[in-house]
Amino acid sequence: MTESLSILVIDDNAIRASIIEAGLREAGHASVRVITDIEDVAQRIGEIAPDVVIIDLENPNRDVLEHFFALSRTIKRPIAMFVDKSDPAEIEAAVDAGVSAYVVDGLRKDRIKPILDMAIVRFRAFSRLRDELEAARSELQGRKVIDKAKGILMTSRGLSEDAAYALLRTTAMNQNRKIVEIAQAVVTAAELLGP
Amino acid sequence: MTESLSILVIDDNAIRASIIEAGLREAGHASVRVITDIEDVAQRIGEIAPDVVIIDLENPNRDVLEHFFALSRTIKRPIAMFVDKSDPAEIEAAVDAGVSAYVVDGLRKDRIKPILDMAIVRFRAFSRLRDELEAARSELQGRKVIDKAKGILMTSRGLSEDAAYALLRTTAMNQNRKIVEIAQAVVTAAELLGP
Repeated sequence: MTESLSILVIDDNAIRASIIEAGLREAGHASVRVITDIEDVAQRIGEIAPDVVIIDLENPNRDVLEHFFALSRTIKRPIAMFVDKSDPAEIEAAVDAGVSAYVVDGLRKDRIKPILDMAIVRFRAFSRLRDELEAARSELQGRKVIDKAKGILMTSRGLSEDAAYALLRTTAMNQNRKIVEIAQAVVTAAELLGP
Repeated sequence: MTESLSILVIDDNAIRASIIEAGLREAGHASVRVITDIEDVAQRIGEIAPDVVIIDLENPNRDVLEHFFALSRTIKRPIAMFVDKSDPAEIEAAVDAGVSAYVVDGLRKDRIKPILDMAIVRFRAFSRLRDELEAARSELQGRKVIDKAKGILMTSRGLSEDAAYALLRTTAMNQNRKIVEIAQAVVTAAELLGP
């Protein structure tokens, strides 16, 4: 785990923030920013662009929690969140929002480092799986579009399958584009032009 | 979160096991089994078939940890694991092995419930994503096999693409099997028979 991570701590309670900060510094993390004003957090995160975000909410009401869960969905960074209590619905919402470590009643200086490490590792594992899913779905979608375009060319121009595919490929090469892009253009055009 | 879960606690330390058990009972979980003999754990898990497994290892050596990580890969259940200390490599190995909650130095009676809830929610989220990935990859693989089989039929029997697909579909219907199975048979046979 690299120790040159830039870490943003969001905490409106100065005492708790100093516990987190001390835990991070003792673990060798030197690049730590603390913000205690939880208004305009999204903008601040955008400006600071931290590698990891630690959010300590003590006893948030539902609105505050919802706000941070919504934020979590957009950050695309490992997030560790500390709250003092939570119900199962909130725990589910936290996981759903992509919070990588959601620690209920467990804020303690010497636990900051393993929780941070865990958040980063979980974030990576989940991101990797999601990237793989996206790649598989995109390849599948690509094949479907190419099949559809081939079918359109075979019908409309009386081509064999091989010839239809060759036409897509040649056009793609000539235009320096991907086959799937040409296929998508064929499908879109056919939809526009109608039967 | 249902409270009728059957929970297996694995802990060779009777005092720590009783802390976990108390935390579970106070949270309303009545179906709790504790085993303190960590030999033959895999077989016991098979017999007991719990919904969730809690493993408390205190200060495991690397062999014990490896053993439980290997076990974790095979269990396919939410697992919460407590250890008293851990390094980043172990944390990574834990996530990699599918441990849904890996709690370093955080065993406390009143934290058992949120940690258990979290483990279950994370397990479900990760399983769902993995199932989706498997489905997408399997559909992709299926399309590839069907395409290949169509190509083989088009070449060897001089069929059009439509006719080749119709032949696969009719054969599948007649044999009450899936198209992809027939396609796989065609591909396998073509490989066996050679060019």
